[in-house]
Amino acid sequence: MYKGSLTTIEDLSNGQVEDILDLAQEIDGNRDAFHGLASRHLMASLFLEPSTRTRGSFEAAMKRLGGDTVTVADPKSSSMEKGESLADTIRVWSGYSDLIVLRHPWEGAARLAAQYSDVPVINAGDGSHEHPTQTLLDLYTLRKELGTLTGRKIVLCGDLLNGRTIHSLIYALLRFSADIIYAPGEGLELPDHVLHKIEAEYNRPLQRVRHPGLEALYGGDTDESGAEVDAIYMTPSQPHSLTLIDSIQMEIEIDKEESFAFYVTRKQVEREGTAGDGPGKRYPRMDAKVLKETGFSKAVIMHPLPRVDELSPAIDSDPRSKYFEQARNGVPVRMALIALMLGLKPWKHGPEGGGQARGELPVPKTRGIVWLNQNCISRIEPLNATAEFTFFDRPGERFVCCYCERETFPAFYAYPYGEVYHPIEERPSRPMDPSRGTFFFDEASARASNFRPSKKMADGVQGNV
Amino acid sequence: MYKGSLTTIEDLSNGQVEDILDLAQEIDGNRDAFHGLASRHLMASLFLEPSTRTRGSFEAAMKRLGGDTVTVADPKSSSMEKGESLADTIRVWSGYSDLIVLRHPWEGAARLAAQYSDVPVINAGDGSHEHPTQTLLDLYTLRKELGTLTGRKIVLCGDLLNGRTIHSLIYALLRFSADIIYAPGEGLELPDHVLHKIEAEYNRPLQRVRHPGLEALYGGDTDESGAEVDAIYMTPSQPHSLTLIDSIQMEIEIDKEESFAFYVTRKQVEREGTAGDGPGKRYPRMDAKVLKETGFSKAVIMHPLPRVDELSPAIDSDPRSKYFEQARNGVPVRMALIALMLGLKPWKHGPEGGGQARGELPVPKTRGIVWLNQNCISRIEPLNATAEFTFFDRPGERFVCCYCERETFPAFYAYPYGEVYHPIEERPSRPMDPSRGTFFFDEASARASNFRPSKKMADGVQGNV
Amino acid sequence: MYKGSLTTIEDLSNGQVEDILDLAQEIDGNRDAFHGLASRHLMASLFLEPSTRTRGSFEAAMKRLGGDTVTVADPKSSSMEKGESLADTIRVWSGYSDLIVLRHPWEGAARLAAQYSDVPVINAGDGSHEHPTQTLLDLYTLRKELGTLTGRKIVLCGDLLNGRTIHSLIYALLRFSADIIYAPGEGLELPDHVLHKIEAEYNRPLQRVRHPGLEALYGGDTDESGAEVDAIYMTPSQPHSLTLIDSIQMEIEIDKEESFAFYVTRKQVEREGTAGDGPGKRYPRMDAKVLKETGFSKAVIMHPLPRVDELSPAIDSDPRSKYFEQARNGVPVRMALIALMLGLKPWKHGPEGGGQARGELPVPKTRGIVWLNQNCISRIEPLNATAEFTFFDRPGERFVCCYCERETFPAFYAYPYGEVYHPIEERPSRPMDPSRGTFFFDEASARASNFRPSKKMADGVQGNV
Repeated sequence: MYKGSLTTIEDLSNGQVEDILDLAQEIDGNRDAFHGLASRHLMASLFLEPSTRTRGSFEAAMKRLGGDTVTVADPKSSSMEKGESLADTIRVWSGYSDLIVLRHPWEGAARLAAQYSDVPVINAGDGSHEHPTQTLLDLYTLRKELGTLTGRKIVLCGDLLNGRTIHSLIYALLRFSADIIYAPGEGLELPDHVLHKIEAEYNRPLQRVRHPGLEALYGGDTDESGAEVDAIYMTPSQPHSLTLIDSIQMEIEIDKEESFAFYVTRKQVEREGTAGDGPGKRYPRMDAKVLKETGFSKAVIMHPLPRVDELSPAIDSDPRSKYFEQARNGVPVRMALIALMLGLKPWKHGPEGGGQARGELPVPKTRGIVWLNQNCISRIEPLNATAEFTFFDRPGERFVCCYCERETFPAFYAYPYGEVYHPIEERPSRPMDPSRGTFFFDEASARASNFRPSKKMADGVQGNV
Repeated sequence: MYKGSLTTIEDLSNGQVEDILDLAQEIDGNRDAFHGLASRHLMASLFLEPSTRTRGSFEAAMKRLGGDTVTVADPKSSSMEKGESLADTIRVWSGYSDLIVLRHPWEGAARLAAQYSDVPVINAGDGSHEHPTQTLLDLYTLRKELGTLTGRKIVLCGDLLNGRTIHSLIYALLRFSADIIYAPGEGLELPDHVLHKIEAEYNRPLQRVRHPGLEALYGGDTDESGAEVDAIYMTPSQPHSLTLIDSIQMEIEIDKEESFAFYVTRKQVEREGTAGDGPGKRYPRMDAKVLKETGFSKAVIMHPLPRVDELSPAIDSDPRSKYFEQARNGVPVRMALIALMLGLKPWKHGPEGGGQARGELPVPKTRGIVWLNQNCISRIEPLNATAEFTFFDRPGERFVCCYCERETFPAFYAYPYGEVYHPIEERPSRPMDPSRGTFFFDEASARASNFRPSKKMADGVQGNV
Repeated sequence: MYKGSLTTIEDLSNGQVEDILDLAQEIDGNRDAFHGLASRHLMASLFLEPSTRTRGSFEAAMKRLGGDTVTVADPKSSSMEKGESLADTIRVWSGYSDLIVLRHPWEGAARLAAQYSDVPVINAGDGSHEHPTQTLLDLYTLRKELGTLTGRKIVLCGDLLNGRTIHSLIYALLRFSADIIYAPGEGLELPDHVLHKIEAEYNRPLQRVRHPGLEALYGGDTDESGAEVDAIYMTPSQPHSLTLIDSIQMEIEIDKEESFAFYVTRKQVEREGTAGDGPGKRYPRMDAKVLKETGFSKAVIMHPLPRVDELSPAIDSDPRSKYFEQARNGVPVRMALIALMLGLKPWKHGPEGGGQARGELPVPKTRGIVWLNQNCISRIEPLNATAEFTFFDRPGERFVCCYCERETFPAFYAYPYGEVYHPIEERPSRPMDPSRGTFFFDEASARASNFRPSKKMADGVQGNV
């Protein structure tokens, strides 16, 4: 884990995830046997953005273990109102407690906290970035209901653009070889940075497929739209028999014995990033009609809650509805996580394998990077956040922030020791050296740094005159 | 109790109330002996409406028992801000905890919560509806100070219209055969629904009586108003010697040896329901002058607190002032209640006797009922609340909501299998069948349902032309 | 202590302060050995003004001792919103808990609370008045880092006008014979009431001295201002060799082996009392440049946190920076204080010596005092606060409020049994009797009380005509 903390689900190896799920299962079977395990331990529960549900689950977990908590639930009463930095807040609270659980509106806040804390930090949600314990309880519920994750089909429904629970879940499902089907709301498709990361790090191509049952999610109004429901299907490591050609729609073969899990999400209207004029009208909704579709007789219905209207209360008592169990699973899963992170139970697996070993990636301190994410902690506390970016050249040249994990795309590049900058797509074929070359986002800043345009560019400019 | 929960004082039989008071008394005598009783138990303290005092008392009680709590004290940080229903909130929190204590602004919220919770729910106040633990601590204090409740005179002073503590207390005092004297503020008299309930369920007629000492409560400005203070006196089961004729004022015979208890309340200005232009100026105030009146030498002064100016601080140190003891009694009483509800101590009495066996009343799913209480949970969450009404035909035809217990009065009735509706007071003498007939609140909705007016009505209309 | 409570650092004798620091040191060395000490004890954590840091530290302390807390952290949800007095709030909560920790916006609130509480009260900050536990942890940190307080030079930097932590600290440092150097921001010098108290009660004259190193605190812009940095230096009981003449600037002899401690504070912009048009630009700032000055190689840098920009993050990792340790010291110090106040550990020293024995001062109930501090609890709750003032005639006639400890200056005086009032500076040379004479703040109120001006005044008036 990053400095002993859990800032993203990728801080955990696959083995560590299994350790957590296994211990959670053991706790679930005999909770009282674990009371007293965390006696004398104090958890700081810092919810600098409102979230009663997640906070309640964490505090219940700590207290079920016999530990105690000190809570900050009202951001307005925080020292940050007096102008304090997150780094200072964390340094002080890490002197008060043995473990910090942090919810924060800024992306990458948990990673910054882990840098400055003397005690482990658990990310309980950092803006639109990550929410790894939600992912753990989702995985726990899926494994419990489906028996395994490998090869299972998980249909992700709703707001795939802003839902951090969805992004964390996708990466985790890929690591455990599940199949993913996307059923986004209109205008709420997966963002590019997630697609890039999937392609770059998990090597799983997108496919365009078709599943008739999924149409019911969108109200099944075939007559009005004339269009069938599309889904994007991820092949597992073993190449699938479906076509790879994007524009051709293919039927998913419905194996009636197979379990589908539907992971339904609400529109994240409170998040910045939702299109200004709001998502389109076409939004998937789970109800009794969907559950009647062929192939869904063994379906598992999940939802991170709270729901609005995308999940019909009429199916609450349907045995396939598992969303309340899912919420309750948060307590044993968080008990397991706390027990392992505090060293009260031993890890059985090491940190290697499956998780992204982020510390080992090349992390150049690249000059000239312009950082556009207003909500990234590295922009809000530049003095405390070490602005580190990981460079990727596939599928396109880009930097990924180590805090918010968003991408930024430079437009120009200058080779080391050179005085000339090139448009990044038209640069000479020499290999780029991201740690020593310089990147620019516009020509003005390149010129301000005493670089001059490449001859090709200069010619182009002349030609334009 | 309703589903093992305490939503109203009437969920408890008289014997169960005595169990709680007896155990509270035992705890009061040796509190530390009960520490550890609730070890490993977790209470969700959900205060979705501000109330530090009640919350503090509940949490102190749980912690005095060695249990722990998870608290939501800020409604703004609640998931309900994301549009979540109370039913969903409760289902999730009942997965986190062993007991839910709920304060909520909507009337009937605790009953809805009890429906959806897997663990016991205690109503810590649901809007203007009920606040049963306040009643329990009031009873405990009265019994402790007066020795018994039977035949004791309790003077209820102040806002009898909106004070939920008062309504709960009245029903409980009637069950334990106390006498009640009303000393309301001007325009803040008992509401009709309480009077109806008293008459229908407790069979205790109202009487108009006079007590000279009570005049001092209103400032004793005999000269200005020329009127003496009126009070309404409830005879116990044994008919009293006072006249039953309403318009005649009679003197209460002052037994100087008898203990009076004054239960003083403040104006509930924060509650909807207070008359728009505010209560009148005539408002009872307890002060040293009142205490000097003949007959009050053994008086007991109580107040649910907080007070504003209706209870003079000048009598705080008077030995008859018991309001701070009353507040403190909240802790042992709630400790006893929690211990009994969690099964950590056995009930000695069963659920029969004294309490209203609400589940056994006819609860028709009546068609056509228009529901006017904007604050009732059954109106706010119609999908989750099973809209059940109990029909009463005495003292007038009306329905009582099983959630908020408010009344609604239909204007028209149609017999089963008929096509005709009648004004409810002028209907034929055949018996009504509330579970199968249809009720209407106006003629337009009757006609919209394809009913037609009775011949008598039609004639009347013609006659009007 | 005042009624067993800690309302100001002066409630403690020097020996008691040492008891607290000694026990804190013991706890710091082996914290787990003290777990369980406060088992079964409940602390009410009433933060009626936001302060997450102080609250977190107190609650962590109580829970580290194995006790528990009930928290009110949101003033808006308080019963006080319903118009409740602080006295009532405290009486109720003292029935719920074994100890009350109170943060309150009004000055003197902790003293009022101690009056009405049945359990000990700890002042966690009452407006601009006092914050004694901050002082205790400051003393603990200073003693730990400097070895002793006696004769050590403490440089107080920044907002000396509004910083309550500063005022408490000054009184305590004087009692333990430290030297104090003032380095205030422009317009944020020590207020008169603190200077008066120092002179009247500690008998330590002010001196004007000069220390070249301190100039760096102000940016060292010698060229612009042309002025060197001034400091005010307090001689210890032993007369110092420096000149006592105020207008002459003298060099502080820099002993390079001596430890300086810098206590840096931020502008208290959230406090009323800051000059309306804001403090001036000249504000001391601690950074790497200051630390390089001659004589500061062994400096200790402290700050009560949160900081804004007066303490450079660039020195966070400098071994002389102790502000994060200082914050952490809050936990063992508060553990020690709680253990001693709850009687879980014995005091080794008595209440005599060093602290101000406030109860023994003459406290007349003086007639005619006009009280101008809008934030004093004695003005906000006049019925509950016993308006007591201590009269001082040195350095000028004034009354000091026993709640907020602010001064008020009467303009006129009438001798007992007389009918004449005099301007207080021009009164006859007979001794004043503050407990029996009458004071007036203007002539109108003197005349309204049927006093007439002295002959000298009357003549003056005539002369003016």
